[in-house]
Amino acid sequence: MTEKPLTDRVVESFAGDDRLSEIMRGLVRHLHDFARDVRLSQAEWDAAITFLTRVGHFTDDRRQEFILLSDVLGLSMLTVGINAPADPDATESTVFGPFFVADSPEVPLGGDITGGAKGTPCWVSGTVRSTSGEPIEGARIDVWEADDDGLYDVQRSSGVAGRGWLRSGARGEYRFWSVRPSPYPIPIDGPVGDLLTAAGRGPMRPAHIHFKVEAPGHRTLITHVFAAGDPYLAEDAVFGVRDSLVAEFAEEEPGTAPDGRAGPWVSLEFDLVLQAE
Amino acid sequence: MTEKPLTDRVVESFAGDDRLSEIMRGLVRHLHDFARDVRLSQAEWDAAITFLTRVGHFTDDRRQEFILLSDVLGLSMLTVGINAPADPDATESTVFGPFFVADSPEVPLGGDITGGAKGTPCWVSGTVRSTSGEPIEGARIDVWEADDDGLYDVQRSSGVAGRGWLRSGARGEYRFWSVRPSPYPIPIDGPVGDLLTAAGRGPMRPAHIHFKVEAPGHRTLITHVFAAGDPYLAEDAVFGVRDSLVAEFAEEEPGTAPDGRAGPWVSLEFDLVLQAE
Ligand SMILES: [Cu+2]
Ligand SMILES: [Fe+3]
Ligand SMILES: [Fe+3]
Repeated sequence: MTEKPLTDRVVESFAGDDRLSEIMRGLVRHLHDFARDVRLSQAEWDAAITFLTRVGHFTDDRRQEFILLSDVLGLSMLTVGINAPADPDATESTVFGPFFVADSPEVPLGGDITGGAKGTPCWVSGTVRSTSGEPIEGARIDVWEADDDGLYDVQRSSGVAGRGWLRSGARGEYRFWSVRPSPYPIPIDGPVGDLLTAAGRGPMRPAHIHFKVEAPGHRTLITHVFAAGDPYLAEDAVFGVRDSLVAEFAEEEPGTAPDGRAGPWVSLEFDLVLQAE
Repeated sequence: MTEKPLTDRVVESFAGDDRLSEIMRGLVRHLHDFARDVRLSQAEWDAAITFLTRVGHFTDDRRQEFILLSDVLGLSMLTVGINAPADPDATESTVFGPFFVADSPEVPLGGDITGGAKGTPCWVSGTVRSTSGEPIEGARIDVWEADDDGLYDVQRSSGVAGRGWLRSGARGEYRFWSVRPSPYPIPIDGPVGDLLTAAGRGPMRPAHIHFKVEAPGHRTLITHVFAAGDPYLAEDAVFGVRDSLVAEFAEEEPGTAPDGRAGPWVSLEFDLVLQAE
């Protein structure tokens, strides 16, 4: 009498018709296939346990190393893709990232979120609309970005900067001042950084501005706009880039800014198209 | 122009011809297939991150919750199988488990490892030999087991019990006294226990004695012998049972023990067959 194969026995141990059991059956099948495919050695299994333990111990209230791991394995972006709006006319989604803050300050239409953020002033504008083309008034638009040092305000201790939220106007229009975003490295002082280094991968993300857009009756959009021409567009450490999210940060004539300010500035136009719920 | 599929981009980011990159490519393929297969929702991804974070924070010097997770997913046993001796005449391997102690006390041939362990006295004997049939003299045999309360000595604070090591004799023979082992639950006071409960799975392991057998020129054998008739043989929480490792703990006539002791006792015969290195 031959024994039933191990994997079948494990799959059958998750016999329920609930969602958890369904997920566990899928996980076991693919996890076992992985170990068999690569013929995982005992020493490699040990190393995996040690690595996960380090990830666990690196994770605290301020640092989520498991999310970072999911990010660099493309799993975060894959999950976004699986759950993204199916409508091809909607703005595409990308990863949320770890730097969102729920209670950032509100600014008026055309206001300035720069705070102490360093960098070339950047005028961002566009329209919020539904996939049917209707402008959406009163959408809440949260924006956040890293400054010229490649840092978010939460990575410093000097107050809100490069972060805020505003509401779209009567014709769905939005506009605000901030700074031109910069590429930045994901945190590499932990086990995920060690993994990237060992695998010869870089830690950089191409320059981007984060958007979270909420409007009644519509799916919440979480996305970025990326800077065209950025040297890291093809090697984003977390695989968040989508072609449709790359836009031009245009160099403008110094002294021609909408608010009359002096000096160099750039402008970005980016429309935000939401799918109905 | 269509974008290259996400999974291909992630796989290609691990481009090296080193072993780590090979493993990561396999991991990414199967992990992504898993998420797509089950159509992982954002809330489920969140729950997975929270679960892994709990596993990480539950793990310390005394408790390895990641190994427990690997155990209940059958990954530990699968890794044993992938790396086990290919020779079908060798004793089969099974999981190592978390209760081994490196510096347990030596006992002489025919000695007693019971210590304070509770349970019916059990006389264990057999022969250590190679797959060619040659007896192996001087093999180091480590044994450890849970007592009638289902506890290993390291789970109490009352000294060594149900644990020791001895050397095989001139004809490969070994024998020692201990107690009949009992079924026991794996630790379920952590996130892995919560997972089992949520999935409707039990925590029990069928009664067994652990063996680790080392002899020069041979592969180290890590295995158990399981008690025939145990109610949990078909549902071992860590999938360690193999048909060839199940043996009879025979009830013996009280007062007939080899050392003349009074009262009930049981006996087990189990040969240990090592593959040459
Ligand atoms: Cu797979
Ligand atoms: Fe970012
Ligand atoms: Fe055990």
